[in-house]
Formats: sequence, C-alpha cells, structure tokens
Amino acid sequence: MKSLIIAFAAALVSITGFAQTNPTQIIEDFKPSVLNQPGQEYPQVNSQGYARFKIIAPHADSVSVSLGLGGRGGTRLKQMPDSSWMGTTEGPMDEGFHYYDIKIDGGKFNDPGALNYYGSVRWESGIEIPAHDQDFYSLKNVPHGNVVQVLFPSPSTNTSRRAFVYTPPGYDGKSKKNYPVLYLQHGWGEDETAWSNQGRANLIMDNMIAEGKIEAFIIVMTYGMTNDVKFGGIRSFKIEPFQTVLIDELIPYIDANFRTIAKSSHRAMAGLSMGGMETHTITLNKPDVFSYYALLSGGIYTPAEIKDKSKVKLIFLSCGSKERPDGVKNAALALKEAGFNAVSYVSENTAHEFLTWRRSLRELAPLLFK
Amino acid sequence: MKSLIIAFAAALVSITGFAQTNPTQIIEDFKPSVLNQPGQEYPQVNSQGYARFKIIAPHADSVSVSLGLGGRGGTRLKQMPDSSWMGTTEGPMDEGFHYYDIKIDGGKFNDPGALNYYGSVRWESGIEIPAHDQDFYSLKNVPHGNVVQVLFPSPSTNTSRRAFVYTPPGYDGKSKKNYPVLYLQHGWGEDETAWSNQGRANLIMDNMIAEGKIEAFIIVMTYGMTNDVKFGGIRSFKIEPFQTVLIDELIPYIDANFRTIAKSSHRAMAGLSMGGMETHTITLNKPDVFSYYALLSGGIYTPAEIKDKSKVKLIFLSCGSKERPDGVKNAALALKEAGFNAVSYVSENTAHEFLTWRRSLRELAPLLFK
Repeated sequence: MKSLIIAFAAALVSITGFAQTNPTQIIEDFKPSVLNQPGQEYPQVNSQGYARFKIIAPHADSVSVSLGLGGRGGTRLKQMPDSSWMGTTEGPMDEGFHYYDIKIDGGKFNDPGALNYYGSVRWESGIEIPAHDQDFYSLKNVPHGNVVQVLFPSPSTNTSRRAFVYTPPGYDGKSKKNYPVLYLQHGWGEDETAWSNQGRANLIMDNMIAEGKIEAFIIVMTYGMTNDVKFGGIRSFKIEPFQTVLIDELIPYIDANFRTIAKSSHRAMAGLSMGGMETHTITLNKPDVFSYYALLSGGIYTPAEIKDKSKVKLIFLSCGSKERPDGVKNAALALKEAGFNAVSYVSENTAHEFLTWRRSLRELAPLLFK
Repeated sequence: MKSLIIAFAAALVSITGFAQTNPTQIIEDFKPSVLNQPGQEYPQVNSQGYARFKIIAPHADSVSVSLGLGGRGGTRLKQMPDSSWMGTTEGPMDEGFHYYDIKIDGGKFNDPGALNYYGSVRWESGIEIPAHDQDFYSLKNVPHGNVVQVLFPSPSTNTSRRAFVYTPPGYDGKSKKNYPVLYLQHGWGEDETAWSNQGRANLIMDNMIAEGKIEAFIIVMTYGMTNDVKFGGIRSFKIEPFQTVLIDELIPYIDANFRTIAKSSHRAMAGLSMGGMETHTITLNKPDVFSYYALLSGGIYTPAEIKDKSKVKLIFLSCGSKERPDGVKNAALALKEAGFNAVSYVSENTAHEFLTWRRSLRELAPLLFK
C-alpha cells in the first residue's frame, strides 16, 4: 500500500497535463479564466488552450508560473515596459482544471488574480481551460440541489469534523422521500471541499437529474487524510483512523440526520487517486457497508480480493487516457470474467486531473443504485 | 447615501485595529495563528497580541506585511541568515480577526501560511488574535447546525445566485418546526461567505442555542453588492438591484424551500458596515417585509425616518468602542424617547472589524423574535 500512496503523490506532482506540442500561431482571443477572482483580468485563456499570466511585482528579479510545457520548470514571465510580468504557456494545455502557483524571487505564492483551491496540502491557484464538453458541469438554469456543511461529532479524533453533503433538488421540500448515498473521497493533499469546488459534483448532479439521466441520490464528502497532513507523513499513512471516522461516526450521523436509505444495498463509496486507495481498502475491510465501489485514477480490484461476490453490485474503474488506461480496462475485463458487474471508463485526452474525475462521476452516476 | 458608502469603504481601509502602543518586553510565547493553513508554523501570535510573520522569498529585495502599528506602512520584514524574511508587529494588535496581505518587491500577495478570507474585493490573508471572550465563537462539543449552500434562481440578474443558510441543530430531524429568519449582510468588499468564515455566525448560534440563551432561528446570507464589484463602482452603488434580489427572489425561495415562519413578524434584517446601509434603506423601503432591524457599524435610524412605528419590533444599533460609540448610543436614546424598542451595544476595545460584529450578533440574537 505504501508504494501505491507514494505513486499517487508522485503522479500529482509530475503529471501536469499539457497537450501535445505543435508550434502553431497563437490566436489572440484570450479571455479571463472563469476561475478568476471577481473583476480580475488575468490569468487568461485562449481558444487553443494557451494560458497567459500577468503578475504585478515591479521590483522582482524573477517571476515564473508552475504551469508550463511538460512541467519542466513552468513558464518564465518577462518584465514588460509597464513593469508588470507577463508570459504565455509554450503550448496549449489539457482541457479542464489545473492547480498552479507563482514563483517570485524564489518564494512560492498564489496568483492574486485567481481563485484558490485546496490541493497539495495548501490553497493553490486554479485555472480552467474550457473543455469541449463543459456543458455537463456548467451552472445552468435548472433546479439546484444544496451543498450542506455539517459538523459531526467524532469521539475517535476528539473534535467536531466537517463534511459536505450534496442533497438533490426537492430534498428540502415537503417530500418524505429517502435517498441512497454515495461517499465520495478527494485525493492526496486535497480536502472535503475538492469535489464541489474543483469537481463541481453538485452541478454535475443537478444537470443529470434535470435531464432525467439519473435517479437522485445524496453525496457525502469528508476529509480523508485524518492522520496525515504533511507530505512526509504520507509514507506512514494508516487507514484505520479514517475508516473509524467514516464507518463508526460519519455514516451513522448522516443516516440519523438526513433522509437516507440506510442499507448497504443503497450505499456506494468512490474516491479519486489516494481516495481510490482508501475506497479499495475500506470496501474490502467492510463488505457489509457498501455495495457499489468506484476507483477514479485510484487503482484496481482483482477478483481474488473480494471474498463474497454477492455483496458487490458494481465495480467502476476509471482514469484519464494519459494515465494507464490499459490497467483499468484489463482489470475490469478480469472482474467481468470472474462474474462481477464491472465497468471501466477512460477519459480522453486528460491526465491525473479533475476533468478526468468530473467525467468519471458523470459516467458512474447512472450506474449507481440500480 | 453616497458619502455614507464612501465612509464605510474608507473605514475598512484606514482603521486597522491596533491596540495602544506601550513599548514593552515581547513575551516569547508565540504560537501559530489558529487561521493558518494546515501544518503551517507562521504567522504566529503571542499572548500579548503581537503577530510575527515569516515569508520565504530568498531573492526578494523587500517584504512587508500590511498589518502594523497604526496601519502606517505596516511591518517591514528583515532577511534572516537562512534567507527567510521575518518580522513582528511593533505593538500588540486588537483582539479578533484581521485581514492582511504581503507586499513583495512592490506586488501584493497573500501569506502562503494563512487561510484566505474574502474582503476588499479579493481573497485576503487572515489572522486571529485570541480574544479574552473567544469562548462564545469557539467550536465546542455541542450539537451543530448546518451551513447550507443554495443556488437560487434570480431572473432579475439572469443567473443562479448563491446564498448560505444556517439551519439550527434539529432542523434536519423529524421535527416539523418552523423557524423565524434573520437576513444577515456582509460589508463592502466582502461576500456571502463572510458571516460564517470571518464571523463564525454558525458557531455563535450553536453555542447560544446549546446554552439555552436564545430560541433557534434560521440565518440567510447572500451577496449584497449585486451591481458593484470594483472599488470605483461603489460611488454609483444603487440599492435597487440588490433589493430586487433579496425581496422578490431570495425571500420567496427561502420561504418555499425551508421551514420558515413566512411572516414579517418573524423576519429580521441586519448588516455590518455597508450591509447596515443596505439594511437601513431596504427596511425603510419595505416596511411590510421585516419587523426587526439591526445596523452593526452601519449607521443609525432617526425616529423621523420610520413612518409606521407599529411595524417595528426592534431597532438594534452597535459599533466598536474605537468607532463612534456616542453616535450609536445617542441614536438609540432618541429612538427610545420616540417610543421605539431600541437597543445600542458597544464592543469594548474593538474597531471596524469582525470581533465587533461577532459580539454584536451575540447581543442581537437574544433580542430577536420575542
């Protein structure tokens, strides 16, 4: 397990999600990134997927952006006649969400123009390259569910812990309906805000429910690195503290305080990257709690690992085409041959980043709770 | 009204909340601020209220922090032998929450060690000087309410707008109880996240409910600068766009989707700073919508402004002792003499900052919906 965790952390650091390099004319149709802070003009993105940055630091000696072709040193900005620092990525970037930071005179800071997202154990700058299929995670004029911040008691960690609960449109009405629940985990260095902020899980759900593509369900998102905050600590990661919080504290709280169908047959667990590793371990450790398992860029199951086939209604495995899609496809085939309801999904032209996981949620949701 | 708005904006910029200067021995008991990012050692605060900063930018020429004695230029950091930049405020700071930023070689950035809070139309660094009365807004082992993010349809602005709704403990249970509602506005340059993030409104409510000091109610927080984002725009601020969103769109949505008592007799409006100005204007424009009015560092009412005394159940006026407490006290006296149920509150040793408003909410809450 240790080597798997290190691999996830390494993937987050090294795979930076740049598209193919083809020296082309840059089209000057740059617009502010949709993830900019209110009123901020920079960073900007053009229709080809290039990103352009502008940083004000008139007396700095050097300014660079961690995003750049192949991730090799990022993009160096140049000082302009007006003393601002500007630069454009060498090549177009992959569609979707990217974390980044700014290096100024040897220190790491966030871009004052961009909104921040929690990744790599810090609040980082975020930029969005509009995807050709962005419609499915866009804010539309449809009924919207809520994202509910709950503080649940956690005797095992001696505090109140935070979770976010997506409740679908209509949940708060006069209906008495009970819903199945998906427990959905973030990746290494992220937290319980990731799936709604970077992942737009609530908007993906709202849109699919409005289009009649899925039956509504609840999603619960909490912090999965219960005993580890720092990078160094990941090598000694143990599943037990988080498993205790999830199984003994959070699930009973959710079932007591939300209108759930409180049965393993109506409970799923999924996670991305390190959250996939957690999903894998906990679903195998607790076969009576969940019936639907999903690993998004988060490893695989082998048939031999699962003791009682009758308890598993679905195994979903996914990743980006720039990761290791054959591993995911072959694992799903082996599971099918062994009699499991296994599905694989490969997100085209994406790496170990959030567009892979937004699409994976879109593919997973219609398969759940059938 | 214009001059009032400019005054609020100026207050936010110029009043930086430093305690009296008495050259004293600095006690070396610095601890990481409770608002630091996970695992970050700096910024730190000591028991006297001094703050110490550490910034990594080895090749920078100058680094300073906007917090500093009297707000005159802030605190200049010095480069240490290990190449980091460090510095301590010249004097102790006021208790409570402060916004700040870091200036590096002429550019404005956030402290990578601190969490960010939306103020001054940007996500800024935040630091907390522990207050002697911090217990009332602390996270405790009591039943917790939820903070619900809703996206409500807004035809007048042609989008879905965001609001946060505090629902008290027990709201989500099997109870059928309906609750009164307080509409609570942020100040200039802040947004709908301010009252739960900086203000800790949810924890203040949880604690007071647990202690039996108040009857539970719902709080609704949304963005009040509907037609203005940039500082320049504040001079042309008009109330109508926000008033339309609040009165015609948000209140009907909340009453339709939450278990409210949908009557003016059970509806309050309050706001801090510019949100007080909005509260003042909207309560007077719409006397049939709210019965409880509260301005927190946000101006006053005069008896002559209110046409029908019978519709007003409470007028609450507050500010910090470092603002203009006499204005607030005298206005409440004049209202009382004119037959209104008026209450003033002055927060000791605080300025135009969030500890004033946390305490104001604590004083206001027991007076509402009686």
